[in-house]
Amino acid sequence: MLIPELALRIFTQNIFTAMGCSQAHAVLAADVLLKSDLRGIDSHGVARLSGYVRLWEKQRINTNPDIKIVHETATTATVDGDAGLGLVVAPFAMQIAIEKAEKYGSGWVSVRNSNHFGIAGYHALMAVEKDMIGFAMTNASPLVAPTFSNERLLGTNPMCYAFPAGKYPPVIVDMATSAAANGKLEIAQRSGKQVPEGWIQDKQGNYITDPHALKAGGALLPLGSDREHGSHKGFGLSATVDILSGVLSGANYGPWVPPFVAFLEPPVNPPGKGLGHFVGAMRVDGFRPADEFKADMDNWISRFKSATTIDPAQKVIIPGEPELEAETDRIKNGIPLVDAVANDLNELAVKFKIEPLSFGF
Amino acid sequence: MLIPELALRIFTQNIFTAMGCSQAHAVLAADVLLKSDLRGIDSHGVARLSGYVRLWEKQRINTNPDIKIVHETATTATVDGDAGLGLVVAPFAMQIAIEKAEKYGSGWVSVRNSNHFGIAGYHALMAVEKDMIGFAMTNASPLVAPTFSNERLLGTNPMCYAFPAGKYPPVIVDMATSAAANGKLEIAQRSGKQVPEGWIQDKQGNYITDPHALKAGGALLPLGSDREHGSHKGFGLSATVDILSGVLSGANYGPWVPPFVAFLEPPVNPPGKGLGHFVGAMRVDGFRPADEFKADMDNWISRFKSATTIDPAQKVIIPGEPELEAETDRIKNGIPLVDAVANDLNELAVKFKIEPLSFGF
Repeated sequence: MLIPELALRIFTQNIFTAMGCSQAHAVLAADVLLKSDLRGIDSHGVARLSGYVRLWEKQRINTNPDIKIVHETATTATVDGDAGLGLVVAPFAMQIAIEKAEKYGSGWVSVRNSNHFGIAGYHALMAVEKDMIGFAMTNASPLVAPTFSNERLLGTNPMCYAFPAGKYPPVIVDMATSAAANGKLEIAQRSGKQVPEGWIQDKQGNYITDPHALKAGGALLPLGSDREHGSHKGFGLSATVDILSGVLSGANYGPWVPPFVAFLEPPVNPPGKGLGHFVGAMRVDGFRPADEFKADMDNWISRFKSATTIDPAQKVIIPGEPELEAETDRIKNGIPLVDAVANDLNELAVKFKIEPLSFGF
Repeated sequence: MLIPELALRIFTQNIFTAMGCSQAHAVLAADVLLKSDLRGIDSHGVARLSGYVRLWEKQRINTNPDIKIVHETATTATVDGDAGLGLVVAPFAMQIAIEKAEKYGSGWVSVRNSNHFGIAGYHALMAVEKDMIGFAMTNASPLVAPTFSNERLLGTNPMCYAFPAGKYPPVIVDMATSAAANGKLEIAQRSGKQVPEGWIQDKQGNYITDPHALKAGGALLPLGSDREHGSHKGFGLSATVDILSGVLSGANYGPWVPPFVAFLEPPVNPPGKGLGHFVGAMRVDGFRPADEFKADMDNWISRFKSATTIDPAQKVIIPGEPELEAETDRIKNGIPLVDAVANDLNELAVKFKIEPLSFGF
């Protein structure tokens, strides 16, 4: 089922408006979700819209937030998101980082009291559009066990690094720090398929391949899967995201990060406020002329694209390339929605008494 | 064979002095190598001293470099290391990052025309001592194949993030972005042991377990080992290090990074100068009062240290903890040297006509 981008965008804006968002916030929040759907990251787009609604119904998302800087220097700041949508709070923070970078070369903003911010790549790309290198990361609901542990203490804590290039599209490294993103697990759950060993463990710490078994006290594994293959590195990266996003801002961290699913209550006596993000921007021409940098980026990309491959039918994939291919295709041909998501969205339409989804072009 | 730290330090300083380093540079370079040996990272300490000497003999290391800033803004800079020892160039760059952070909240320095900089943790810790968060990364000789490729196009490209804490020691995430560090492979080569599947591949791209087989055109694998377990993420992290260190500074990158081993000639017509580093510092109190941050860091560490474990005899290891344990032990009891390294060092003593190693306490 394919839906034109514009139709899905307007529908999504209408839902956010119905939730009480200002027009500007509704447009921005919809833009973040649509970017994810366009880029083929279906798990982080409109599929999550009903999740945001449920959190709002539980008064865990404030659709009229007073987002503000609570601490700053010339190139650093902490933003309090006032329990707003991360989809709105994170772009606010990135805008500050970009403005600081324009003045001083770089800007870094840690964010507390926020919610799920969509795909990290959206925020990092805001910097790339200004010929800057963009950084974005967030902590998230605890689903991942540190190496040797059977407790869920970390989120899939994604990090994104985005670099402008010249004739080629930007290089965008946007990745969960777990062996597999939770979205991939959800796909396996829906399709009833087993997952590879090394993605998840059961409550006792044994590898399992049944994706549903995660719910019985199991955990996702850090990138690297086991100690021998470097899971302590995945743990270290996830810890880095958690500290920069949560500890540095005064948000929650580790097991205290509030869950995205509304049926789970947030931990009592949390050490911080909401969940946290960390975003940053550095001007390329703070280091060397932008045209020189871009020429070398093109050379880098060209060399890696033309690398010999094990299977001649394969290519080395430049980070960000598959997402751009999806975006090009979906802008033209529409965004595929699985039935479950389309039904979910139409239930929201009924709830908020707005126009249902329109699939015509 | 245990050697007191001070004896090894003086010996190492004397070698650097004999190579033509100034007293200040010799002391600093020895400090970086000794820190590695003290912290138990034997692959990056004095075991590499003869390697630096061979590069110097080939005139690929300049022991009297004119290290300088070639481009800067308030919070960013590019440093040209003038082909100096990375052991000296990287601390110079980090000092600039720290000074910028003192003034503006953060400082970021990309470095070109440098050489191997020892352990990333040394440089990041310079920031931690000033109540700052420290970042350090470097590109390195190509040994790692991107996902799907059988070409060595990336180094083990380590990244380090270091965070001050309160009553606990700092959290230091210092990791190669490959599944296994090259040092671990060298240990397996020396001991004649097989390595786990997922560390290396042969020229055809098949997993191999014989560590010597790497030399026959094989490659190390990125963190994640294979596509299914996220090797594209390890590739993305390694690419990030390569771009920030090499492309951003005007150093070499990818397959053009000059080899550490002197018997391999650097690539002809390289796109940049030497190899590159990227270092940075952010003041903790640029985001929130340092005492509040440290109290939450202690809470973070305490929670992860007390996590339940799969094997009750195991503990969750806080990043940086094993290295600190080694340092405490080795400061007291001396640094163990394997025969091969001790012999290597004594050959240097003969070459430079300096006092041989002294093992007495």
